[in-house]
Amino acid sequence: MTKKIALISGDGIGPEVTKQGMKVLEKLEEISDVDLEFEEFPFGAEHYLDTGELVTDEAKEELENFDAIYLGAVGDPRVKPGVLEHGILLDLRFSFDQYINLRPVKLLDSRFSPLKDKEPQDIDMMIVRENTEGLYAGVGGFLKEGTKDEVATQEMINTYKGVERVTRYAYEYAQKRNDEKKLTLCDKSNVLTYAHDLWQRVFEEVGANYKDVTMDHMLVDAITMKMVRNPEDFDTIVTCNMFGDIITDLGAEIQGGMGLAVSGNINPEGVSMFEPVHGSAPDIAGENIANPLAAILAAGMMVKELGWEEEGEKIETAVQRSLQNDYSTPDMGGNLNTDEVGDHICSILE
Amino acid sequence: MTKKIALISGDGIGPEVTKQGMKVLEKLEEISDVDLEFEEFPFGAEHYLDTGELVTDEAKEELENFDAIYLGAVGDPRVKPGVLEHGILLDLRFSFDQYINLRPVKLLDSRFSPLKDKEPQDIDMMIVRENTEGLYAGVGGFLKEGTKDEVATQEMINTYKGVERVTRYAYEYAQKRNDEKKLTLCDKSNVLTYAHDLWQRVFEEVGANYKDVTMDHMLVDAITMKMVRNPEDFDTIVTCNMFGDIITDLGAEIQGGMGLAVSGNINPEGVSMFEPVHGSAPDIAGENIANPLAAILAAGMMVKELGWEEEGEKIETAVQRSLQNDYSTPDMGGNLNTDEVGDHICSILE
Ligand SMILES: CC(C)[C@H](C(=O)O)[C@@H](O)C(=O)O
Ligand SMILES: CC(C)[C@H](C(=O)O)[C@@H](O)C(=O)O
Repeated sequence: MTKKIALISGDGIGPEVTKQGMKVLEKLEEISDVDLEFEEFPFGAEHYLDTGELVTDEAKEELENFDAIYLGAVGDPRVKPGVLEHGILLDLRFSFDQYINLRPVKLLDSRFSPLKDKEPQDIDMMIVRENTEGLYAGVGGFLKEGTKDEVATQEMINTYKGVERVTRYAYEYAQKRNDEKKLTLCDKSNVLTYAHDLWQRVFEEVGANYKDVTMDHMLVDAITMKMVRNPEDFDTIVTCNMFGDIITDLGAEIQGGMGLAVSGNINPEGVSMFEPVHGSAPDIAGENIANPLAAILAAGMMVKELGWEEEGEKIETAVQRSLQNDYSTPDMGGNLNTDEVGDHICSILE
Repeated sequence: MTKKIALISGDGIGPEVTKQGMKVLEKLEEISDVDLEFEEFPFGAEHYLDTGELVTDEAKEELENFDAIYLGAVGDPRVKPGVLEHGILLDLRFSFDQYINLRPVKLLDSRFSPLKDKEPQDIDMMIVRENTEGLYAGVGGFLKEGTKDEVATQEMINTYKGVERVTRYAYEYAQKRNDEKKLTLCDKSNVLTYAHDLWQRVFEEVGANYKDVTMDHMLVDAITMKMVRNPEDFDTIVTCNMFGDIITDLGAEIQGGMGLAVSGNINPEGVSMFEPVHGSAPDIAGENIANPLAAILAAGMMVKELGWEEEGEKIETAVQRSLQNDYSTPDMGGNLNTDEVGDHICSILE
């Protein structure tokens, strides 16, 4: 069945890198039963500067009819920091209730990790981040703003519903991911005695339905230490929005950096969104030198989540091979340009 | 002038490792004008299990008369997690308004870092963590607790006063620390648009008085990445309580792990507290095999903060030398026991 993809290529290098992702997806359609249909949406800095629009309500209604969104990158020095992040990225996550942020941490080639003595089998975990509440609720305020008596508050709000669904998703994931079947809850329950007490209770309660999954618990501070010392100890991790933001980026770095990090913003019953984690890198935009591998991997993750598991894996394997043989852009040790990397991945798939 | 130190050796390996710290301090008194007087306080799990007491109000009144507290470690499997942390560690921090948590991140020997290709000069930064407010305020609650409609909240509360004083301290620190004179604010101002907006405003405002210090800003997620990829880019970092908890532990790991990490809980106008970052390690307590170097380094930091800058440095140099020559416990590659490491540091000082 044809799946409808909304392409938001966005700003800076976004269009260049998603172009390679599209190229790879088209190749995949040729050689498998993957079947996609694309429509482009113009959201990003240029559109905002031209029209004052971020993502309109009409656009959101239209997007409801798609199976997934494939996003390049947003961000532009001419736009005040925060505007595009809130008006596009966070707005889409919240509007489509993409309550899972799925962030694989997988080392493809040990050369790219900043950690000593780690091989691909040592860095291979999945981080499941809650993506719609916690400190991202946007709730807070100022008392006596601008005075020496000012108090500023920001609420970390968690709901049973929010924690239950992400925890359940994480257990399911841990159960099917591999034979280890281990799920680690990352929180700060010794200090956040309200918000993370809820997490602890729900983690226990939901876990009762997944008796074959080993429950593990670790404080966020200890997790960051273990991620750089013994990442091999982790299988699947579930965590709140804020800590997820932090540990997924740390995860991105230990597995080789932004050039290879992907993010799925998932609503298992709705419209999900897939993106490379890197920014729009306006300084190198339009030069055909940006590394498209993260965007290609994001396309692979999208294909997997749309149900073509094996085909998605093929993209990942192709990226790994091209990296190992230095068919990559200079930032990854190769000397190809953006287009050539896309072509090379297609030729491996072929 | 004699400085009065309250010793809380605490639980598990706490007494063994602070004993070595004391030994080193006594040696320092012999060979320099450092002049200390100690009194022991019994707080910890044993005392709590015997008497039901954590730190009493009377004890706090007494502690007011000291110049510093030298703490071993608290934690015991027989006590519910959280009780000792709150009743001793956090209570002392809050009661004595120790608003600075000072955490040096300094690689002494490149063998001990999990990072590739980093030398001592590459990992050398100071993290200044706010230590009395933010998410640690302990404010929050439950609505409809235990039901499927439950909402749990936890407040991140910052005050102008709290942010101003820690920021000012950090600027002072950056100004005198070395010639780089750079201070990085670590926050999540793009999402925490209230609490961290205050941080941003205060950071700017206070910075106006330190024109020779370069102001730098980085989001917490990006900071964790850079800490493992390019730690050499950091000089002094200032951050909120929660993010400080996370990045200081990540810092501890990249500079060699818990065996070498120290923490100063500082009230520049009051009673400060110095401790090794590691826990009480009940599994190896009493065996004379625990690594005392972090406790010894904490003693060195205490001496520095009490005004004997050079003498404190001597302890650090001695630790570095003993490490490099493998005069250390097995966890650091040597084959000495706890006592012998203490003796060796003393002999280097001599
Ligand atoms: C851009 C920003 C708002 C976003 C976040 O904090 O979630 C980003 O860091 C991410 O992790 O996707
Ligand atoms: C023990 C715990 C409450 C404490 C904290 O979170 O501050 C510890 O992690 C630290 O960093 O000193």
